Amino acid sequence: MPGDAPGRDPAENAQLALLLEVAGTPKPGNVDRRRDYEDLRFEHFLAGAVGSLRGFRLAADGARVGRAFERGVEGMSHQSGGNTQFGALLLLTPLVQAAATGRLRREGAAAVVEATTVEDACDFYRAFEHVDVAVDEPPEGIDDLDVRRGSDAVDSIRDRELTLFDVMELSAQRDGVAAEWTNGFERSFEAAEWIVDDDGPIYRRASRAFLRLLAAEEDTFVVTRNGPDVAAETTRRAQSVLDGDEDADELAEEFRERDVNPGTTADLTAAALFVALERGLEV
Amino acid sequence: MPGDAPGRDPAENAQLALLLEVAGTPKPGNVDRRRDYEDLRFEHFLAGAVGSLRGFRLAADGARVGRAFERGVEGMSHQSGGNTQFGALLLLTPLVQAAATGRLRREGAAAVVEATTVEDACDFYRAFEHVDVAVDEPPEGIDDLDVRRGSDAVDSIRDRELTLFDVMELSAQRDGVAAEWTNGFERSFEAAEWIVDDDGPIYRRASRAFLRLLAAEEDTFVVTRNGPDVAAETTRRAQSVLDGDEDADELAEEFRERDVNPGTTADLTAAALFVALERGLEV
Repeated sequence: MPGDAPGRDPAENAQLALLLEVAGTPKPGNVDRRRDYEDLRFEHFLAGAVGSLRGFRLAADGARVGRAFERGVEGMSHQSGGNTQFGALLLLTPLVQAAATGRLRREGAAAVVEATTVEDACDFYRAFEHVDVAVDEPPEGIDDLDVRRGSDAVDSIRDRELTLFDVMELSAQRDGVAAEWTNGFERSFEAAEWIVDDDGPIYRRASRAFLRLLAAEEDTFVVTRNGPDVAAETTRRAQSVLDGDEDADELAEEFRERDVNPGTTADLTAAALFVALERGLEV
Repeated sequence: MPGDAPGRDPAENAQLALLLEVAGTPKPGNVDRRRDYEDLRFEHFLAGAVGSLRGFRLAADGARVGRAFERGVEGMSHQSGGNTQFGALLLLTPLVQAAATGRLRREGAAAVVEATTVEDACDFYRAFEHVDVAVDEPPEGIDDLDVRRGSDAVDSIRDRELTLFDVMELSAQRDGVAAEWTNGFERSFEAAEWIVDDDGPIYRRASRAFLRLLAAEEDTFVVTRNGPDVAAETTRRAQSVLDGDEDADELAEEFRERDVNPGTTADLTAAALFVALERGLEV
């Protein structure tokens, strides 16, 4: 590699993190380098990563986090697979801004998300107009903030003067991505260390980090789509793979057949890969 | 997909074409979604595609083709696998410029490359400083233009007043990428039609287009690295796969073990995928 130009910048590393995440295999239940679902395929994630850069570039250039996120989701949506990387963008967008401003540490990332505004929250709701995202019922008493209302919820956001950080706090108990926003991206930074300290090709490191994350905590996307029992089973069986008691590839086939898709854990893996790349992980 | 913003632009489609090309499988002899070489892996191509966008963006914005190509190669080089997509960038860069100026037809692409200058040729030579590219000996009498001399050849380029198009003409007989420059990208546009008219997931369309290209004409990269006999065999056996007499996956394993890597055919496949995307191929 010649030394005549800087390497990848944070926006490029975020795009690469999306690509390395989906390439990671085996990653039981998710689309990966070796596995497609019939209507959600590897190529949809490739196109999603291409389009997402628009948002990462805005975030790196200092745009509001909500605006950059919404533009990233818009770019991601130009493929026919539907929601490929919505949660990953919600993690990566503030992390890109933290990196671009020399603050890619837990406190720095926390400062970025705590600085979000009501306008960012409105952008977040607008992002749901670009794709169908599988979400849970809203907590009791805040039906007017149901993300499925999209832009229609914007008036409620303004009335309540909620920032995007506030919105994430409302969901942090039942959404693993929102939880990262409120705890300083704890799991993303922890898993980044695993990836940096690991060795071998990155598609294997990504697989191992995914399994460790999944074994440590239930995937909230699985809770929402498949229920708490399946989510608990998913976590147990990820641990079985780590213990050598189950074969990861066989588990990947089984989860695919049962449509058990730990998507939030994949989002966390993408965030971890980004931090690892920014920490010097060599591709 | 909501209608509130344009879809992918030509620079983004070129990046996606690189990703769809390497994901295409089986693609006997090449890195693909299912196969790595030990030191040249799928992840190197992902990083190469991320970095290449810098050049595509310049080409779309009207920079000189040589300059955009050199910057693309520089961006591509920020990974440890070496030369991943040099030839593909040499095809895609002028095609992006043709698309961005509403001329993505054979005559339009020909006009773009015929308009290249001596400065473009100098940029082309500088691009070789970023990566090691496997090339043949230069034709007799033009040793001073050996691309392996990199920037040292620039003085000779200026003395001889050679444009980048002229340089490509010198190599067109023995380099499949240079041949495309001089014949109006004939094979790239033809294979794009195959891809658009095909059906099913794109990773299979890319595989079929690759095999048809390889069966139709010897891969000049294989000629350079493995000799004419192996190149002839490669073409025959691609035809056997198309005829149903050989299994593509078995052939892919065999070619990988023998280090037979039809890289120029992969470059043409990437160019064809780009044209197909610009023609409306839906991902």
